[in-house]
Amino acid sequence: MRLAVFDEFRVGVVQGEDIRDITSVVPAGCWPEQRINWLIRNWADVGLSDLSRFPAVPASSVVLRAANPAPPQLFAIPANYHAHIGEIGSRAITKTGKTARDNGFFLKAAGSVSGAGEPIPLPAGSSRRFDHECELGVIIGKPARNVPRERAMEHVFGYACLIDLTMRIEPGQFEEERSLRKSFRGFTPLGPHLVTADEAGDLTALSSRLSVNGDRRQGAALKDMIVDVAEAIELISSVVDLRPGDVIASGTPKGVGPVAPGDEVTIEIDTIGAMTLTVTEAGPAPRPF
Amino acid sequence: MRLAVFDEFRVGVVQGEDIRDITSVVPAGCWPEQRINWLIRNWADVGLSDLSRFPAVPASSVVLRAANPAPPQLFAIPANYHAHIGEIGSRAITKTGKTARDNGFFLKAAGSVSGAGEPIPLPAGSSRRFDHECELGVIIGKPARNVPRERAMEHVFGYACLIDLTMRIEPGQFEEERSLRKSFRGFTPLGPHLVTADEAGDLTALSSRLSVNGDRRQGAALKDMIVDVAEAIELISSVVDLRPGDVIASGTPKGVGPVAPGDEVTIEIDTIGAMTLTVTEAGPAPRPF
Repeated sequence: MRLAVFDEFRVGVVQGEDIRDITSVVPAGCWPEQRINWLIRNWADVGLSDLSRFPAVPASSVVLRAANPAPPQLFAIPANYHAHIGEIGSRAITKTGKTARDNGFFLKAAGSVSGAGEPIPLPAGSSRRFDHECELGVIIGKPARNVPRERAMEHVFGYACLIDLTMRIEPGQFEEERSLRKSFRGFTPLGPHLVTADEAGDLTALSSRLSVNGDRRQGAALKDMIVDVAEAIELISSVVDLRPGDVIASGTPKGVGPVAPGDEVTIEIDTIGAMTLTVTEAGPAPRPF
Repeated sequence: MRLAVFDEFRVGVVQGEDIRDITSVVPAGCWPEQRINWLIRNWADVGLSDLSRFPAVPASSVVLRAANPAPPQLFAIPANYHAHIGEIGSRAITKTGKTARDNGFFLKAAGSVSGAGEPIPLPAGSSRRFDHECELGVIIGKPARNVPRERAMEHVFGYACLIDLTMRIEPGQFEEERSLRKSFRGFTPLGPHLVTADEAGDLTALSSRLSVNGDRRQGAALKDMIVDVAEAIELISSVVDLRPGDVIASGTPKGVGPVAPGDEVTIEIDTIGAMTLTVTEAGPAPRPF
């Protein structure tokens, strides 16, 4: 099943060219941006067998929001692919020679997530470099604490394409924390839909691709992750509790490159979907970057 | 006013030796751990003028939870005090010579927060060093986006004592991300209560203190922050939207030092309150640290 969050955080199920608006199943007292978290928590009890009882709206008429607009936590695995298909072992693609297995995870602000229908706004007037990273987004379904990798996939609700935008450090600039440089509003596009794990199928058979203005920049087989989704859940849940709705950005392959206002960035993962977002410039902020 | 979160995330108002249990004002559909977020969002409309209509429970009979058990986001400012009272300018206390003004902020996992009635569990069997950091916790009241420092304090709801626990990097160990090393469950004690801004009074008149087993380790005047609360809000809101209930750990003064299982750690800030937590050892995890 493909879930969509759209317009003012309404929730729906994608059916061909339509979206079945299932917002009515979520209690009215739930904050709109948390409706998808409510659905995930109550998924076993939500009766969606007869979708025809819900109103259909044309998918082309809505603005898609993030697959989860308010994840309780947003974890991210650093650069996480063998540099070349067929390479074995844990050789890193980062300068330090460290892999995701050494570095663990970092965090992005939950407020950085956005949807397929929204722009990627770079800080106003910035002369810094901003890079794209092409990733699989993992959405947690069941609470997870100290979960060994053999049981980890039971805790996954579904997946979405995820672009991890990053402000780069260059000589002479402030050396801001990685979390800051990756947490600007709109720096974690997540979508176009939330695809349930059963619908996504076997991850090891899937590939991801990212292009800018039609030029292929990144591409990888998900099976080439150094720390796979199960190990990421084992790792994170050994540190802190994973909650329903949490998102894990599972790390980028090589090919990271710059984007600028006006660029169109397209990400696609087999069976998960595809989305194209436009890079723009944000309004002025009291602290420039 | 002093708000308390206690037992199964009930919410109350502290009155002397009692807590008035105001859980009934929060809609039943709200997730228990998010009740305090609901109160913050709806604070102007919550009628608490006559507290006598709410049941009183002895404060000594409850387990205090985090002042906010589920902050939407948990920001943290790096080491943020002039090394010595009376020192001027932005001289840093970190080895790199960078100040919080250069580094911006980092993030901790929301799941790391805990309360005055809970332990500080260190990872099972670890030989690593774990340090305490004594901080003022700031709880956001109103959404903030691109807020200049002159208007920033209008967005503060209140304060709590905050201990930022950290797993240190030492030679020969993995060099995990800072966010990982600070995000273990229980690594952000926040309490004992949530003290509203009007009750806390003028921050520049307040001092913080932290001791371990009765030995003073840290102490600072809040006016000696390099990046003060208003500037922190300006900074963060220039990157991403601050939401009601978000928590900012405002940075530590000098005197950071180790803790071990069995230690009792006490933090106190004038007008905000005091709490003592016991350091313990967590159960085994599939990934040791």
